[in-house]
Amino acid sequence: MKKPWGGRFREGTAKTLEKFSQSVSFDSRLWKEDIEGSRAHARMLHKQGIINEKELKQILKGLSEIEKEINEGKFQFKEELEDVHMNIERALIEKIGSAGAKLHTARSRNDQVATDLRFYLRAKVQELIEQITELEKNFLTLAEKNIDTIMPGYTHLQKAQPVLLSHHLLAYAWMFERDRQRLIETLKRINQCPLGACAIAGTSLPIDREFTAKELGFDGVIPNSMDAVSDRDFVLDVLYCGAVIMMHLSRLAEEIVLWATDEFKFIELPDRFSTGSSMMPQKKNPDPAELIRGKTGRVYGNLISLLTTMKGLPLTYNRDMQEDKEPVFDTVDTVSMSLKIINEMLPEIKFNNEVMREASQKGYTTATDFAEYLVKKGIPFRNAHEITGKIVLYCIEKGKSLADLSIKEFKKFSDKIDRDVYEILTPEGSIDAKISYGSTSKKSVKEQIKLLRKKLKE
Amino acid sequence: MKKPWGGRFREGTAKTLEKFSQSVSFDSRLWKEDIEGSRAHARMLHKQGIINEKELKQILKGLSEIEKEINEGKFQFKEELEDVHMNIERALIEKIGSAGAKLHTARSRNDQVATDLRFYLRAKVQELIEQITELEKNFLTLAEKNIDTIMPGYTHLQKAQPVLLSHHLLAYAWMFERDRQRLIETLKRINQCPLGACAIAGTSLPIDREFTAKELGFDGVIPNSMDAVSDRDFVLDVLYCGAVIMMHLSRLAEEIVLWATDEFKFIELPDRFSTGSSMMPQKKNPDPAELIRGKTGRVYGNLISLLTTMKGLPLTYNRDMQEDKEPVFDTVDTVSMSLKIINEMLPEIKFNNEVMREASQKGYTTATDFAEYLVKKGIPFRNAHEITGKIVLYCIEKGKSLADLSIKEFKKFSDKIDRDVYEILTPEGSIDAKISYGSTSKKSVKEQIKLLRKKLKE
Amino acid sequence: MKKPWGGRFREGTAKTLEKFSQSVSFDSRLWKEDIEGSRAHARMLHKQGIINEKELKQILKGLSEIEKEINEGKFQFKEELEDVHMNIERALIEKIGSAGAKLHTARSRNDQVATDLRFYLRAKVQELIEQITELEKNFLTLAEKNIDTIMPGYTHLQKAQPVLLSHHLLAYAWMFERDRQRLIETLKRINQCPLGACAIAGTSLPIDREFTAKELGFDGVIPNSMDAVSDRDFVLDVLYCGAVIMMHLSRLAEEIVLWATDEFKFIELPDRFSTGSSMMPQKKNPDPAELIRGKTGRVYGNLISLLTTMKGLPLTYNRDMQEDKEPVFDTVDTVSMSLKIINEMLPEIKFNNEVMREASQKGYTTATDFAEYLVKKGIPFRNAHEITGKIVLYCIEKGKSLADLSIKEFKKFSDKIDRDVYEILTPEGSIDAKISYGSTSKKSVKEQIKLLRKKLKE
Amino acid sequence: MKKPWGGRFREGTAKTLEKFSQSVSFDSRLWKEDIEGSRAHARMLHKQGIINEKELKQILKGLSEIEKEINEGKFQFKEELEDVHMNIERALIEKIGSAGAKLHTARSRNDQVATDLRFYLRAKVQELIEQITELEKNFLTLAEKNIDTIMPGYTHLQKAQPVLLSHHLLAYAWMFERDRQRLIETLKRINQCPLGACAIAGTSLPIDREFTAKELGFDGVIPNSMDAVSDRDFVLDVLYCGAVIMMHLSRLAEEIVLWATDEFKFIELPDRFSTGSSMMPQKKNPDPAELIRGKTGRVYGNLISLLTTMKGLPLTYNRDMQEDKEPVFDTVDTVSMSLKIINEMLPEIKFNNEVMREASQKGYTTATDFAEYLVKKGIPFRNAHEITGKIVLYCIEKGKSLADLSIKEFKKFSDKIDRDVYEILTPEGSIDAKISYGSTSKKSVKEQIKLLRKKLKE
Repeated sequence: MKKPWGGRFREGTAKTLEKFSQSVSFDSRLWKEDIEGSRAHARMLHKQGIINEKELKQILKGLSEIEKEINEGKFQFKEELEDVHMNIERALIEKIGSAGAKLHTARSRNDQVATDLRFYLRAKVQELIEQITELEKNFLTLAEKNIDTIMPGYTHLQKAQPVLLSHHLLAYAWMFERDRQRLIETLKRINQCPLGACAIAGTSLPIDREFTAKELGFDGVIPNSMDAVSDRDFVLDVLYCGAVIMMHLSRLAEEIVLWATDEFKFIELPDRFSTGSSMMPQKKNPDPAELIRGKTGRVYGNLISLLTTMKGLPLTYNRDMQEDKEPVFDTVDTVSMSLKIINEMLPEIKFNNEVMREASQKGYTTATDFAEYLVKKGIPFRNAHEITGKIVLYCIEKGKSLADLSIKEFKKFSDKIDRDVYEILTPEGSIDAKISYGSTSKKSVKEQIKLLRKKLKE
Repeated sequence: MKKPWGGRFREGTAKTLEKFSQSVSFDSRLWKEDIEGSRAHARMLHKQGIINEKELKQILKGLSEIEKEINEGKFQFKEELEDVHMNIERALIEKIGSAGAKLHTARSRNDQVATDLRFYLRAKVQELIEQITELEKNFLTLAEKNIDTIMPGYTHLQKAQPVLLSHHLLAYAWMFERDRQRLIETLKRINQCPLGACAIAGTSLPIDREFTAKELGFDGVIPNSMDAVSDRDFVLDVLYCGAVIMMHLSRLAEEIVLWATDEFKFIELPDRFSTGSSMMPQKKNPDPAELIRGKTGRVYGNLISLLTTMKGLPLTYNRDMQEDKEPVFDTVDTVSMSLKIINEMLPEIKFNNEVMREASQKGYTTATDFAEYLVKKGIPFRNAHEITGKIVLYCIEKGKSLADLSIKEFKKFSDKIDRDVYEILTPEGSIDAKISYGSTSKKSVKEQIKLLRKKLKE
Repeated sequence: MKKPWGGRFREGTAKTLEKFSQSVSFDSRLWKEDIEGSRAHARMLHKQGIINEKELKQILKGLSEIEKEINEGKFQFKEELEDVHMNIERALIEKIGSAGAKLHTARSRNDQVATDLRFYLRAKVQELIEQITELEKNFLTLAEKNIDTIMPGYTHLQKAQPVLLSHHLLAYAWMFERDRQRLIETLKRINQCPLGACAIAGTSLPIDREFTAKELGFDGVIPNSMDAVSDRDFVLDVLYCGAVIMMHLSRLAEEIVLWATDEFKFIELPDRFSTGSSMMPQKKNPDPAELIRGKTGRVYGNLISLLTTMKGLPLTYNRDMQEDKEPVFDTVDTVSMSLKIINEMLPEIKFNNEVMREASQKGYTTATDFAEYLVKKGIPFRNAHEITGKIVLYCIEKGKSLADLSIKEFKKFSDKIDRDVYEILTPEGSIDAKISYGSTSKKSVKEQIKLLRKKLKE
Repeated sequence: MKKPWGGRFREGTAKTLEKFSQSVSFDSRLWKEDIEGSRAHARMLHKQGIINEKELKQILKGLSEIEKEINEGKFQFKEELEDVHMNIERALIEKIGSAGAKLHTARSRNDQVATDLRFYLRAKVQELIEQITELEKNFLTLAEKNIDTIMPGYTHLQKAQPVLLSHHLLAYAWMFERDRQRLIETLKRINQCPLGACAIAGTSLPIDREFTAKELGFDGVIPNSMDAVSDRDFVLDVLYCGAVIMMHLSRLAEEIVLWATDEFKFIELPDRFSTGSSMMPQKKNPDPAELIRGKTGRVYGNLISLLTTMKGLPLTYNRDMQEDKEPVFDTVDTVSMSLKIINEMLPEIKFNNEVMREASQKGYTTATDFAEYLVKKGIPFRNAHEITGKIVLYCIEKGKSLADLSIKEFKKFSDKIDRDVYEILTPEGSIDAKISYGSTSKKSVKEQIKLLRKKLKE
């Protein structure tokens, strides 16, 4: 097949190269954006007197036909035509003849693909923002529902201090709130229009870049034509945002996997979000969480993939940059799907409140409260820490908990200890005692819920 | 040596573990931030009545002595004390006794190190912003100096169209302007204070987190204590910003290497920024550019390093997170050093304007202008492209340039071609003809300079 | 649809999870291996008396029917059945009833998928080895064809010393020879059979693992059932081999791009392996080389992807590991396609011998020979280097080449210089003078060709 | 300071560049290898008549003095002299004059650094092999000591089937055995000598590369001078081997962290290999395991770092390649240190056998044995699986274990179930029943121990 750029070539393209260099198998995903972009471009060409009214109408009609064909699955994308752009242009020319041959005036695939991709990612990032908003709301609802549930807080996966489950859940909400902010910032950088930069240098034809940008809903126009066609920062930004979201999800997934073990038993997963084993009949596995955790790898890989591709490329467009699309498509799909499943599953998880409370009593989780008790009695913290450590060691050796000790036993370690000590040795006492801003107290949790709900409305 | 946390331990720590787990060899870099944070913390403890005036004075005096000792290189950091925090606390206690033992009240190393690192990165990111601003200004100055210099613009490293060198340089300025924006956004997320989150749950002591946050110049206080100690997004953001900056620098470096070859000869590097060979006496190598390009690898590696470390970590603090510091220290150092050298070298590069102009005449770089010429004569672009392609092929076979063809020869391809065609076949004609916004015309370049200078003042 | 593992579940699986957790959309690629593995497994079950002859025949017949249906595109893989294994087992049961229900005896998907994937990768790695062998042969042929062609050798992309093009090409052959060795080593590790490890612990049924391993052409049996199902090293090895191959190809691609520039003009690419521009009619771009260079990113990304996924996974199988397939499929496809196109393109590249030879005369490429000339005259090398450097500087200032200098001029720098100096100042003289093993002399090149041809026959 | 290569330069090097481009701050680690390499080179120069006996003696004496000075910490490496090579050469010339100026004859830093690094990594890889051998032996010893200990085997971190702790531990031994093989293969590729390749093209001086290679203990000589100086595959191989070792260690570390939780309690870590909290007095944290897991990130980062650096580099040496050393130094240090600490800690871990056995009884871990029991009674596996699943569901609802069911209850699900069923419902019964090769039976474990011990002796 004669290539649309084939004028100066004596030979046709090798089959192997056609197969190797084609992008239509994946960039056809951009067909809607490509057609929408062509419509705006045609209207601008007409407004600027570069094509006439009749030609514009023909183009718009032809594009609509193509749109319909694709929508109905009747359009056949051809590898020999390389990409979505040439497939659509060629089909248009076949439909309407010379008016179609005018569409590519003052346009190159270099600015066209950058426009399509920005257009596409704008919508995708907006979707991700909505999904993350929903996720934060799910955490807020769960926090409200479980506002009094006590569980052990962990550092180093060792029991640290009693915390409210709601406080723990809100920690995730705050993580995702940062992801939301990052996506919003990214959106601003995506939503700049490169169309009209042409191949590299702009054009000698009297185009109106502001017009097409506005038609397509862009915030502005990229002011340097060479930058416009060689920049892929906006794709990297999406890949990075995706990587951090998956990192956050992988932490949540890890906890779901842990909490669903026979050993922790903090939660029970719904049958609907578990799977079994082909061989072991008793198995009920937390697959969604494992898959999310596992998919973190591919999203990291996508980021490193494009960073590598862009490294050391001289200006401006190089064919290497065709490799921007598959990673970003995969990242938005993977992140979106992961958010979707977590959003569906989260509200259905059953929290075993009694198990959690029980667990929070083990492991000397109120030792820090005890040390702060001593501080309040006038003992310097470092010494209070030392004394408490020794009492814990004594308890371990005697097989007792802190609350099991008699006042007499306590007094052996410090005579500042009085009967009021027992108040702070329960998980409830520990949590109620917290008074600092952002702590795990119920008051703080309620403040956080209010604050975050407000942010989500901004 | 007895550990400050050793109360509940029967045995001392293995030497191998001390060596393996110590972080003081690299986190001692945070000593200034650590002392500053301790000062603010002590003032808050006093304000809140947790320590008395005398104790505060002792602590401040002790910290100042330690500060002086470190400044003068007299302070000995010890591996057995693990990290910068314990080294300074222990030294303080040794100096002032029980007042020193009170400093760690309502504080954990978990919130302390997060505070120190945010404090440190805030300053470093501000420095990077300044360096990038300087770099953009260097490009602006160079663009102004070379505003009329013509060179070939490239796509696929094949000559594409004539462009102004100033336009090419500004493409870089716009890249780095995005880096600047990204850093500014990152700065906001860094500058939130975790101090007072304590180990995980907050504290039962009456601290004032807003006070310490203000003392230390933070914009606000992190509202969830668990998030405060388990979040490293702000480090990842810096690592990512660094990766994109290096990617941009690697593209510039690649062009410097290319342009300095005997084959391109577009530039001459100053002796001061070149090195020779130990064996080949004639060599003069573009080492700074190569090193910058090469160092892109380590900065990418640092990003993947922390992303990997954070993957799948359950809440809250895990010792894995100690691995956040070395990559981010290396990234800020590498990026800063790379910016420094490029900022110094750039103004000293000699551009061979004549060579560049000459090069822009080869490779049929005005073929697109020619096609647009035909468009203006009423030929649909796709056909104009085809015709031009055939003329180029004819020229190649005859060993001629486009401008070499006679009108008679031109007419064989299209009778729309007239004498006025020669005007657009020179590089100057090509550039002057560009009228679109953001194009390579001198007008556009001047607009860009104005626009970017304005942005830098915002 | 009732799941094959659904006995202990009260509820069906959520649609979202079915979509999220299915792998059949990509692991159906393993259908041949899966059927082959089932055949061997069935024969073993029969041999061991676990199923009877009739059942074996039914199973083999059923599997052949399924094979035929898949081959003819008539088999419908269903997402609800999760993966290729369950799709085929279910189809078999539907075809042949209870005999089919016996096939999964003493087998789990955990050992089954590991077997399928090893089986598949064994063939793919063998293909890659063949393609690399072909590539080495292409370099050898090219080296023989261009054995006398002289070009400038580069360090730092600055002209260094004259070398034979054949020597330069052989440097690549040696790189790929290491890739070949690495793949051969990887093959050994791939070709170990996990079948019979079952889910994790082996089985209480009297299976014969050696038998199935032999039937399937494996070299041996993995001796630990837990390792057998949780190991993915063999996939990582393939991903790593692929990454290094692409790195080597990216270097070659970079040189093709450079050499095809108007500035270097060392080569001319065939039209068949070039593409044009949609806007710029004169363009002929080295797309295959750019794409190979760009695709290096995705292959690196695939490696980091699985490394990340495997990080920190407790034993044994975790669902995360399902993420092993897509990266390795993509890597083998990408590497194979890249090798294919380079193998086709390489013999068609036209080397501009005259341009290369000319280029090797510029840039004082014989300065090192000159310094060694001085060494032979008794001057210590470091001093000879210094003298030569000064002569080069003199030449630059006078606009002369070394060979342009008169003996009188030479004598000003050292009286050891005689008329015989001119012999080594030509590229030919320089190359002929090389006598060290592995040098760029024709003798060395011939030795290398012989040595490498021998290695390829081993 | 005048550079050793400064002859053709008019200006000195910028301070910033000296600082930026120096490598001596990290490559001075190669000083021993550099001196050893120079000795061999000098002996070869003498043997070949390029330097005389007296010069050789002077050089050897000078080098020994320098060696002594470095050993005693008296040698001052200078940044202005760039790297370890120039520092030592310059010191030698200062000591012995013109004989020293002859040492760099027929040598370039390009081949010198490649030689030094291969020499260095050879030793380091041998050390890693020894450490891994030790680790495998530690697992073997532990397996022997705990040969009868029963624990639950996990898939998806859900209890799967009872396994022997020894079998679980051996799974790790087999992983590391693959690492050992990989390192041995890498060693072969490292141990090839590039010395004598000179800058790029070899030399016109009569050197003997075989001689120096043998002197330095290399297996052979690299046959292409351009490949010799531009190859860094051997570094990548080490980085990759390190990455897989760390991945394996991270899995072990994850299990140590899990098993040491209050919830699992399978192990108790020695105080010597645990650390406490600065705030929470009761804490005892599994820091070595967490740090190992965390450090996986840096080792992955190092791999991606050099892969990135090498991408797209044209032949031959480019200064980018200086960036090979820091990642590989860090990787060998990190991996070595991680292996050291795990080797020390592993034998001191206390396994809570009773807890593990108890845990293996929960979670219906013998359900698969039960299904295989049904298979032996003639029920097709898929049906046996279904029946067992239903019994498990019944048990869950009744709060019973499988062994708690009466025969009457069993019979409701299948009349094939008899009294002999109880034999296989205990963990011991389950394990004893395993008869397949590589299974978790004691027999299989003993075979593995024998097999692996044999491999270690090979």
